[in-house]
Amino acid sequence: MKIAIVQLNYHIGNFEQNTSKIIEYIGLSKAGGADLAVFTELSVTGYYPQDLLERKEFIEQSYEALKLIAAQCTEIAAIVGGPSINPEPRGKKLFNSAFFMYDGAVQHVVNKSLLPTYDIFDEYRHFEPNRNFSVFDFGGKKLAITICEDLWDEQETQNEFGREKLYQLSPLKELSALNPDLVINISASPFSYNQENWRKNILVKNAIKYQLPIVYVNQVGAQTELIFDGGSCFLNKNGEIQDELKYFEEDFRIIDTESSTQNLQPKTGYIEKIVRALILGIRDYFTKMGFQKATLGLSGGIDSALVLYLAVEALGKENVRVLLMPSRYSSDHSIDDALQLARNLDIKYEIIPIQPMVDTFGQSLSEVFANLPANVTEENIQARTRGILLMAISNKFGNILLNTTNKSECAVGYGTLYGDMNGGLSVLGDVYKTDIFKMANWINRDREIIPVNTILKPPSAELRPDQKDSDSLPDYEILDQILFSYIELNLSPDEIIEQGFDETTVLRTVRMVNNNEYKRFQAPPILRISSKAFGFGRRMPLVARYS
Amino acid sequence: MKIAIVQLNYHIGNFEQNTSKIIEYIGLSKAGGADLAVFTELSVTGYYPQDLLERKEFIEQSYEALKLIAAQCTEIAAIVGGPSINPEPRGKKLFNSAFFMYDGAVQHVVNKSLLPTYDIFDEYRHFEPNRNFSVFDFGGKKLAITICEDLWDEQETQNEFGREKLYQLSPLKELSALNPDLVINISASPFSYNQENWRKNILVKNAIKYQLPIVYVNQVGAQTELIFDGGSCFLNKNGEIQDELKYFEEDFRIIDTESSTQNLQPKTGYIEKIVRALILGIRDYFTKMGFQKATLGLSGGIDSALVLYLAVEALGKENVRVLLMPSRYSSDHSIDDALQLARNLDIKYEIIPIQPMVDTFGQSLSEVFANLPANVTEENIQARTRGILLMAISNKFGNILLNTTNKSECAVGYGTLYGDMNGGLSVLGDVYKTDIFKMANWINRDREIIPVNTILKPPSAELRPDQKDSDSLPDYEILDQILFSYIELNLSPDEIIEQGFDETTVLRTVRMVNNNEYKRFQAPPILRISSKAFGFGRRMPLVARYS
Repeated sequence: MKIAIVQLNYHIGNFEQNTSKIIEYIGLSKAGGADLAVFTELSVTGYYPQDLLERKEFIEQSYEALKLIAAQCTEIAAIVGGPSINPEPRGKKLFNSAFFMYDGAVQHVVNKSLLPTYDIFDEYRHFEPNRNFSVFDFGGKKLAITICEDLWDEQETQNEFGREKLYQLSPLKELSALNPDLVINISASPFSYNQENWRKNILVKNAIKYQLPIVYVNQVGAQTELIFDGGSCFLNKNGEIQDELKYFEEDFRIIDTESSTQNLQPKTGYIEKIVRALILGIRDYFTKMGFQKATLGLSGGIDSALVLYLAVEALGKENVRVLLMPSRYSSDHSIDDALQLARNLDIKYEIIPIQPMVDTFGQSLSEVFANLPANVTEENIQARTRGILLMAISNKFGNILLNTTNKSECAVGYGTLYGDMNGGLSVLGDVYKTDIFKMANWINRDREIIPVNTILKPPSAELRPDQKDSDSLPDYEILDQILFSYIELNLSPDEIIEQGFDETTVLRTVRMVNNNEYKRFQAPPILRISSKAFGFGRRMPLVARYS
Repeated sequence: MKIAIVQLNYHIGNFEQNTSKIIEYIGLSKAGGADLAVFTELSVTGYYPQDLLERKEFIEQSYEALKLIAAQCTEIAAIVGGPSINPEPRGKKLFNSAFFMYDGAVQHVVNKSLLPTYDIFDEYRHFEPNRNFSVFDFGGKKLAITICEDLWDEQETQNEFGREKLYQLSPLKELSALNPDLVINISASPFSYNQENWRKNILVKNAIKYQLPIVYVNQVGAQTELIFDGGSCFLNKNGEIQDELKYFEEDFRIIDTESSTQNLQPKTGYIEKIVRALILGIRDYFTKMGFQKATLGLSGGIDSALVLYLAVEALGKENVRVLLMPSRYSSDHSIDDALQLARNLDIKYEIIPIQPMVDTFGQSLSEVFANLPANVTEENIQARTRGILLMAISNKFGNILLNTTNKSECAVGYGTLYGDMNGGLSVLGDVYKTDIFKMANWINRDREIIPVNTILKPPSAELRPDQKDSDSLPDYEILDQILFSYIELNLSPDEIIEQGFDETTVLRTVRMVNNNEYKRFQAPPILRISSKAFGFGRRMPLVARYS
């Protein structure tokens, strides 16, 4: 059977665009001689529409779109993802469904059984799980259709301390009892830098265990925080990947389930994956929000340097402008490094020293503050003055402010709310500082783009004389390992100490993480590249006592 | 049977405090001659711990606390809520459980069947639903224990367009087949100004339908956004409420299931309920975060006046200080009204005019802005300058900034991010402007606390000459009705227009709501008083196209 794997970038709620894309690719599939074109999970709506699924007009528009698409399915079949209304009187209103279309109409509706409701997933919030399994004939084959998580009944890793079977059911076990010839899985599986490996393991294990070939079709593109990396593939029943589509790009391929030629993608390291993911994340945020231009503050440090590079890659240098905002504590090399980078990337920049504003605030507050000693208050005024200037550029010229906070800072609250934590999108908020250095070196692999001095000098916020990050934080090499153990691995402080880290450092780090939930609560959306990012995938109560 | 209804205010994760409170009340119950003391849902951890439930050390501490509590249950039984580890190899790691303790140990563990996963609820994220039902004998009676949502299989109102049966199971139907004598329900049912009525309806309907008396014990106190109002009660099998405990306060009463005397609470109107809820919300936020003192900007307008009144009620006048920050666009009456209120409430205030900072920003930006006309940029600089000043007070003196944005503004994005949207807690972000006027009048019912001029003058942001809210927004009477229909009732724009509202106004309002998701994403936590508040109970994608 010839199957078109259609890996597209959808826009949530943009029915017009999603529908015309799907229809275009049904045409291409037909022209290419495919018997069946397979699209991704919730393709007609984009994944994930969250509480838009609770709106009547949204569901109505989705059904209208599906009708238009089905009408195009003549002499070809298609599988398209979308919500369907639960006809039963009990349970959630909707199913997360795959619509099998043929002869101009929907012929079968297959509903998702395993509804991920952990980390960034909220599916049981909106959908009723399927409990009935069936296969059907098409083109002389029995097809078993599954939706994303349906193949993940046994998880490789788990948030919930090592539990392997999160669900009561194993959909593929139920389906395999019905003797299918082929498994089709439509997915919207968000990127993390490990996800490609986990995903392939799951697919390979399932193909081998049930001795069934699998057509796996994954969404590509970013939806605010979540980046979908594509990498759709076809595996034969021995678990060998025969076909693999591109990563981080739309792609389309007609495969023959009987062919045995292999056509795979080149392997990439995790740093390159993160770079590609973040560029896609920025680009799609701007495109889908209807924005073109970005701005950010360039400090001479490595974080803002990296964000600038990524923004230029994503949006083009003509769409990015930066502000240098030196203070009396800025070192000469910071300004030089920032200027050098702006020149390397040929970027419009302006310089506005912040001292006049900082002084005026100081004068206006002098009576209220009487003779109280300077403390973090005055440091925050500097960071917030920069925040106002950047937002002024943003408001006046329509350039969206990119936030430059990294994950290490974000974790320990080393940043000023309403100051350097400002921005429409956090580009690096899920990237640890130690990985940021690796990214900078990777970007410089052929020539110096990011000034070497920016990479080599000790990190500093430059909010008081001779300040260094290491004055108030453990070395990033240590800090990032503790943070990774606490956040990604969900280890307890005791377990982290048992790994050999200094007890005082571990307890202090964990306390900083817990005490700064309130800051992260008001942080911009963070592009997710790890298995546990700050944001809606990590929901921590604010008023809690942590111990 | 004599049952102690123990309605307490817990602190999430504060096992020491929660445990000693529970133990104290087991003692009081025993001393009062009770056979059984009933505590609330997840009482040992506080409701709702969110992803703390995924942390090993959290679950271990919870089990240790339960052991300490069980040891106290001699000559009295107790029902205490907490997570329990799922012993089965499949499904989520935990159950949401009621622990029945007697003879110094846990005798029965009853698990929750219906796991609310909508609006502000995330229970299926962490818990496996129970599917097995049993009753047990105690003191000559067969007890059926249920947990909160277990009684809500048929909902009075639904987010998901009018669906009445959200679940496959009806726990009370299953339990009633086992012939219990008494139903006990332990709850953590968050306040909204309608919730008391909905809750009583559910309880009355269930008692009558199954001809069973119900002991209903609800949590009280606030956990960040969520306010729990108590109002625990006992209903006889005819659905008559015999006993009703206090609202918005801890309370404790030993009831006799055979007695027929009635002891109810006075009825209160919804405006008074909102006032009491918000005062509790502020107080518990501060107490549980370990804060004492608050600050806010007093503009002379009604929103900041109301927040100041509520803060003084919650924290005491000695713990609140305010800043008046007039600009060249502030009218004389604004300053007079603000001063009058500060004097009425006997509050420390300071006056810092913002013009010096605004001018300095203007000078520093003059070259970059060349001769571009003034627009919203300059208005935002004013609001953000105020934001910096307030945060400076907050940082220097440790007074937490209270946000004064109301729900109408928050909905349409009429506010400045990093300016007047700043704050640790949004007090009025779930209260429509029209209700704010009603609250002010209710507060003034005996004497003028909030200056009458503050209530009567037309609302204005005073960011440019002679500005009025009505220049850019529909009248609040109209606006709030449209917003309520769109947000609380989840009606489509067409349905709202069919109610008789002007089409252009409806479409413009809905567009403003949708276009400002990005602002609300970075707003402070909002005290929830309605059935649909902004925040984690309303999850909307940012990059979506809304239509």
